[in-house]
Amino acid sequence: MVGLPARGKSLIAGKVKRYLRWTSVKAEVFNVGKYRRTDNPHPDANFFDVNNTEGEKARKAAAEAAVADMLKWFQDKDNKVAILDATNSTKSRRKWIYDKIVEANLLHLFVESKCDDEDLIMSNILEVKTTSPDYVGQDPEEAAKDFRDRIRNYEKVYQTIDESEKNLTYVKIINIGARVVINLIQDYLQSRLVYYLTNLHIKPRSIWLSRHGESEFNLSGQIGGDANLSERGQRYAKMLPDLVKRSGLPKDAPLTIWTSTLKRTSQTAQHLQKELGWEKLQWKALDELDSGMCDGMTYQEIAEKFPEDFQARDDDKYNYRYRGGESYRDVVIRLEPIIMELERSENIIIITHQAIVRCIFAYFMEIPQEKSPWMEVPLHTLMKLTPKAYGTEVERFKADIPAVSTWRPKGSTAKHHDSISEGTPEDVVGEVKKVGAAANAQASEK
Amino acid sequence: MVGLPARGKSLIAGKVKRYLRWTSVKAEVFNVGKYRRTDNPHPDANFFDVNNTEGEKARKAAAEAAVADMLKWFQDKDNKVAILDATNSTKSRRKWIYDKIVEANLLHLFVESKCDDEDLIMSNILEVKTTSPDYVGQDPEEAAKDFRDRIRNYEKVYQTIDESEKNLTYVKIINIGARVVINLIQDYLQSRLVYYLTNLHIKPRSIWLSRHGESEFNLSGQIGGDANLSERGQRYAKMLPDLVKRSGLPKDAPLTIWTSTLKRTSQTAQHLQKELGWEKLQWKALDELDSGMCDGMTYQEIAEKFPEDFQARDDDKYNYRYRGGESYRDVVIRLEPIIMELERSENIIIITHQAIVRCIFAYFMEIPQEKSPWMEVPLHTLMKLTPKAYGTEVERFKADIPAVSTWRPKGSTAKHHDSISEGTPEDVVGEVKKVGAAANAQASEK
Repeated sequence: MVGLPARGKSLIAGKVKRYLRWTSVKAEVFNVGKYRRTDNPHPDANFFDVNNTEGEKARKAAAEAAVADMLKWFQDKDNKVAILDATNSTKSRRKWIYDKIVEANLLHLFVESKCDDEDLIMSNILEVKTTSPDYVGQDPEEAAKDFRDRIRNYEKVYQTIDESEKNLTYVKIINIGARVVINLIQDYLQSRLVYYLTNLHIKPRSIWLSRHGESEFNLSGQIGGDANLSERGQRYAKMLPDLVKRSGLPKDAPLTIWTSTLKRTSQTAQHLQKELGWEKLQWKALDELDSGMCDGMTYQEIAEKFPEDFQARDDDKYNYRYRGGESYRDVVIRLEPIIMELERSENIIIITHQAIVRCIFAYFMEIPQEKSPWMEVPLHTLMKLTPKAYGTEVERFKADIPAVSTWRPKGSTAKHHDSISEGTPEDVVGEVKKVGAAANAQASEK
Repeated sequence: MVGLPARGKSLIAGKVKRYLRWTSVKAEVFNVGKYRRTDNPHPDANFFDVNNTEGEKARKAAAEAAVADMLKWFQDKDNKVAILDATNSTKSRRKWIYDKIVEANLLHLFVESKCDDEDLIMSNILEVKTTSPDYVGQDPEEAAKDFRDRIRNYEKVYQTIDESEKNLTYVKIINIGARVVINLIQDYLQSRLVYYLTNLHIKPRSIWLSRHGESEFNLSGQIGGDANLSERGQRYAKMLPDLVKRSGLPKDAPLTIWTSTLKRTSQTAQHLQKELGWEKLQWKALDELDSGMCDGMTYQEIAEKFPEDFQARDDDKYNYRYRGGESYRDVVIRLEPIIMELERSENIIIITHQAIVRCIFAYFMEIPQEKSPWMEVPLHTLMKLTPKAYGTEVERFKADIPAVSTWRPKGSTAKHHDSISEGTPEDVVGEVKKVGAAANAQASEK
């Protein structure tokens, strides 16, 4: 990373790490600020003054420790992308890093975030003063003032990447993507990262996520298929416009509805479309995980007919691929364009299926692959995800309409068809859970 | 398009048009040179001199006619992307186009190709002098000289897009992607186009394309499934390394093998991998079109069991989606990442399935959607596609190993299981067919 403080470097680093891990690329962030803080937990702006040789020495030592750990991390050949999260704001610092990387026979990609939009910088400063470990327990006004002084100290020596560094592979993101300069991209992963980075924006928005209403196959405990909604599923569809409204809609910004191509999602979206006049898009990529030869069967039947497969799926649900069908890993690959378009888009409501909700949720909340396929996603429950600077906020809104539970814990065949959740009155609309995907990831600059 | 002559503008315009049409986005190229040629079929370099007011007037008239036609074309709301292929090499010309576009309430994206690599320019000039309609019937040496003079005339007035035009949405491609500047990208289609453009390269390479060897399902006339190769299919797999070698391999550049996740493609690739030591990659996205509920059936059985579906598929094969399965349209969407990686890659051999070969071939050869699903792709035949400046060259290499024909013409159920092609001795290795996808599309600048 390259850039002045409060330019969203840690935000970008965190998102890239999360995206890569979701696509099974092992990635890690090395935050130089964290290394620096072991010796200097609460430095003031003077620490970052160019003329402060003491501070300069400490900051260089932190960078060296982070880079050393990063290179050690690469000794494990499974580890693919390390992100060095620091200002790296001078040509000489970048030359030093470049030499280290070339020496270690690794590829590099400098990602500079350059921003002179005062509003963006201020909102970033406000975020930092409330969350940075550098300012824990300090007066927020004082912290903000000190942080602005720190930025000014960096500005004195800051050198943006320019023509004189044209041998570097880099992407320079100016004012959060208003302008992007890409130089000497060589491999496919770099190209995908650049595409991802150019799709990011930081406008406030939310993503609503729901499974379709209860279907006739849910009632009979069958998986797959293209069944209609049950009577209770239809009630959920009718209630959905109200549920979405009560979850808090943005002013003057209509939602776009995305569904799969299967009837139960279209039927669930129909009243949203009719009553609220929102545009609807069907995506084949949002169809349920393809269960191949098991399509239309109950878990009981699968366990009887394909006992080995059933066991194999329990042992490694993320990688298990149904005969002639898909694995969770396959689903994530076909969801990548969805994630790209989600990153570009503003307010979207997605009506889709259990496995798909799990994968999309795993992307936003950084749920590891061994857990995400087992996540409980109850029917008749709307989730609202709101991306924040250092994590995603989740709110759940449960409709008071009972539905079968389709959640099958490891080793069981039973849950799917005999457990009816009664929609307890406690589960009222507006139950709010906030989960920060990377709530502790915030850390300011070296 | 923006750029001096011989910077690959028409090549880029043609590729973008082909890519968009393949993804069902209606696109058209408006080449200003063509309009200019109606009055001035064979102008010499003087015509393009800035001081030639006569020439300047004629060139402006051609641009006006092209833009007028382009705007008229947009009156059909299905038409989405028009590419104005001309030098548009001055700020004032771009301002004029921008105003026209804004007035018509359309979005714009300027694509500048800037190139100062003399080798690239010279190879482009050599291409042009042999193919440009401006120089038909003229001495090639004379033509090349005149063309260089024409470029010099353009250079006198050429203004690259710079800071003063920062209100424009543009992508500036410098030396074929060594450096790319992206400005003010707003919508998803623009973003996808930019991603596509940044993946293009013009290094010489080929793509080899083959179906798997004959499978046991091919013998029994069943579709889908995950069958093993037949005895004849295994013979094809054994012969493949030799067949590829005889097709002409690049020096010192190993091929990468891409297969689907199905056994019949892996088995077909096994000797390539073992004998030649090439790396193999499995792609779920290369799996055969999913025939859903019809998986494992013969066409005869489908016609009997689902007569209406069978008819619907014949009526519109591109859009027909098998119950619980896929359409050709669905397959194209999942193949998009494959095409992106193919554009970035150099020499690749793809062992895949009938419908997938059809879709990939359709991309390279610009086969329209109503034709591509009916294309005959015989078993035991290797295709070599070599992208050239104005089209793709195809060579076919037929192995002398008989196989069933799996080609089913419209309205028939029979072909699949009772017709055995005997592999006539005339069908020898090295049968060469050259087909230019856009052989007539070449046209030089206004």
